[in-house]
Amino acid sequence: MRLGYLGPEGTFSEQAAILYEPAAEFVPYPSIRSVAEAVDAREIDEGVVPIENSLHGSVIDVLDFLIRTDRTKIKFELAIPIEQCLIVVPGADRREVEVIYSHPQALGQCQEFLAREYPGVELVASLSTAGSVTDMVESDRPAAAIAPFRAAEIHGAEVAERGIQGNRSNFTRFVTLASEDSLPTGHDKTSLAFWYASDAPGTLYETLGIFSSRGINLVKIESRPTGESLGEYVFLVDIEGHRLDAIVAAALAELTKVTSELRVFGSYPMLRSEPA
Amino acid sequence: MRLGYLGPEGTFSEQAAILYEPAAEFVPYPSIRSVAEAVDAREIDEGVVPIENSLHGSVIDVLDFLIRTDRTKIKFELAIPIEQCLIVVPGADRREVEVIYSHPQALGQCQEFLAREYPGVELVASLSTAGSVTDMVESDRPAAAIAPFRAAEIHGAEVAERGIQGNRSNFTRFVTLASEDSLPTGHDKTSLAFWYASDAPGTLYETLGIFSSRGINLVKIESRPTGESLGEYVFLVDIEGHRLDAIVAAALAELTKVTSELRVFGSYPMLRSEPA
Repeated sequence: MRLGYLGPEGTFSEQAAILYEPAAEFVPYPSIRSVAEAVDAREIDEGVVPIENSLHGSVIDVLDFLIRTDRTKIKFELAIPIEQCLIVVPGADRREVEVIYSHPQALGQCQEFLAREYPGVELVASLSTAGSVTDMVESDRPAAAIAPFRAAEIHGAEVAERGIQGNRSNFTRFVTLASEDSLPTGHDKTSLAFWYASDAPGTLYETLGIFSSRGINLVKIESRPTGESLGEYVFLVDIEGHRLDAIVAAALAELTKVTSELRVFGSYPMLRSEPA
Repeated sequence: MRLGYLGPEGTFSEQAAILYEPAAEFVPYPSIRSVAEAVDAREIDEGVVPIENSLHGSVIDVLDFLIRTDRTKIKFELAIPIEQCLIVVPGADRREVEVIYSHPQALGQCQEFLAREYPGVELVASLSTAGSVTDMVESDRPAAAIAPFRAAEIHGAEVAERGIQGNRSNFTRFVTLASEDSLPTGHDKTSLAFWYASDAPGTLYETLGIFSSRGINLVKIESRPTGESLGEYVFLVDIEGHRLDAIVAAALAELTKVTSELRVFGSYPMLRSEPA
C-alpha cells in the first residue's frame, strides 16, 4: 500500500503513518492539501493528515477539501502523543549548548523548559522540527534541537531529555483519507458537515433533536464561518455510530430534509478513549 | 492606557492593538499566556490576544485561561485581515532574490505564490514574521521576507507585493481582555463556556433549547475535550445579546441549573459582520 503523509521524515505525521500501517510504502508530501489531493487523484492508496490543530499546518485545509470532494472519505483515526525532546549530537554536553533550533511553535510549546534550563540561550527557527536536527548537526556552535524522538533516531542524534513540552497530555488527532470509509465494527463514529440556506434561530437546535431523539451521542460539534459569505456557517459534527447502522441511517435521511447541504465524511472505528 | 499585546512589533497582534486604541501605551509580551496573566495581575489595563487560530500561538491558551480566572473578561473583539507581503530591502530587485525568510506557517500560507514566482529559491525559517525582516536585512545574499505591511514600515523596508497568501479572505479574530466587560450597546455578543458532570445523550440538545425557546441566536458553538479526564467536554458558545439583557439573563439563570459549571467570559459589541 502506498501511504502518503506530510513530510519530511521524523515528524509526528510520519509517526502517525507508521503507527497506522508499518508495512506501507511511505510517500512524503510538502503540505496537508497535497496529501489530500494525491488521494483524490489516486496517486496514493491512502493518506494520513492531522485533523486537529497541530504544528503541521492548517487543519481547515482538510475540512475544506472534504467538503469539496466526493471521491475521498475518512477511513480511520488515530491519536499521537505530542512529545518534544531535547536532542544533541552524540556525546555532546547539554550544559554547553549555545543555540537551540526548532519550529517556532515547538519553541513556544517548550518555553517554560527553555526559560528554566536555558535562560538567555539563542533560539533559532527551523522550517520543521525534523529539519531542526539537521540544522543542529550543521551548526558551528554547540547546539541542540527540539524535535520528536523519531527525528533523533533518523539522524543518529542523541535524546538528552524527553517530554519537555509544557502541556504533558498533548495529543494530535490524525485521520487517514482513502477512496472508501471503513466497514461497521460495532463501535464506530461518523463525521458530518452540514449547513443551512438561512440561519433562522433554532435551526441547529432542531437538527440536534434528530440525534437526541434517537439516543445518538454527539462526539464533537463545531461551527465555522464559511468565509465565502459573511455570517454563514458550516457545522462539523461527529456522532457515535456507523452510517450503515439503522438508526444512524434514519437520522441522516432526516438530516437531508432540514439542512440545505449534508456531507458525510465517512464512518470509521472510534478511538477507545478520546485522548486529545 | 497600558495595552499589552503579543510581540514583537510589526505582527498582526500589534496591528490589532493599534486598531483598538491608537493612543495607548503598547507593551509587548512574549506569549499569549503572558499577555493574559499580565491583565489578571493588573500590570496592564488591557491586553489584545488572538481568539481564533493564527500564526501567533495556541488560542487554547486564551480559553484555558478564561476558564480558570474570575478576574479577567472579554471586553471587545476585532478582526484583522491576514495580508502577507513580499518585502525586500529598499531599491533591491525582487527578481534577484536567492533566499526568502519567514515564519514557517507564513511560508506555508504563501506556498502557491512561492512555487509560481520563486521555484527553487531557498526558504529559511524565522522566529516570527516581523523577525524575518531583520533576518532579511542581515542576510549576506539577495533576500526577501514575508511579513505584514507594518513590519516593512517599522524596519524601513520595501513592500514588493501585497496579498501573496493563498487564501485572500483570511481574517484573524482578536479580543481584548480587561478587568470588566463592556456595557450593553443594543448589538452585543456574549461568550460562554459550560460543561456537564456526565455526558448523557441529549444534554447539549436540552441546553440549546434554553436559547432556542427564547429566540437567542447562537453565533458560535464548539466542543473541546478537556484533556484532564478523557471523554469529557467543555462547550464554548457565543450567543447574540448582552448578559444584562433580560432574556439573556433569564437564559443564563436557566443554564446554571442544567450545566455543572458555567463561565461567562463577557459581553461585548458584536462585529457588524463576521468576516473571519
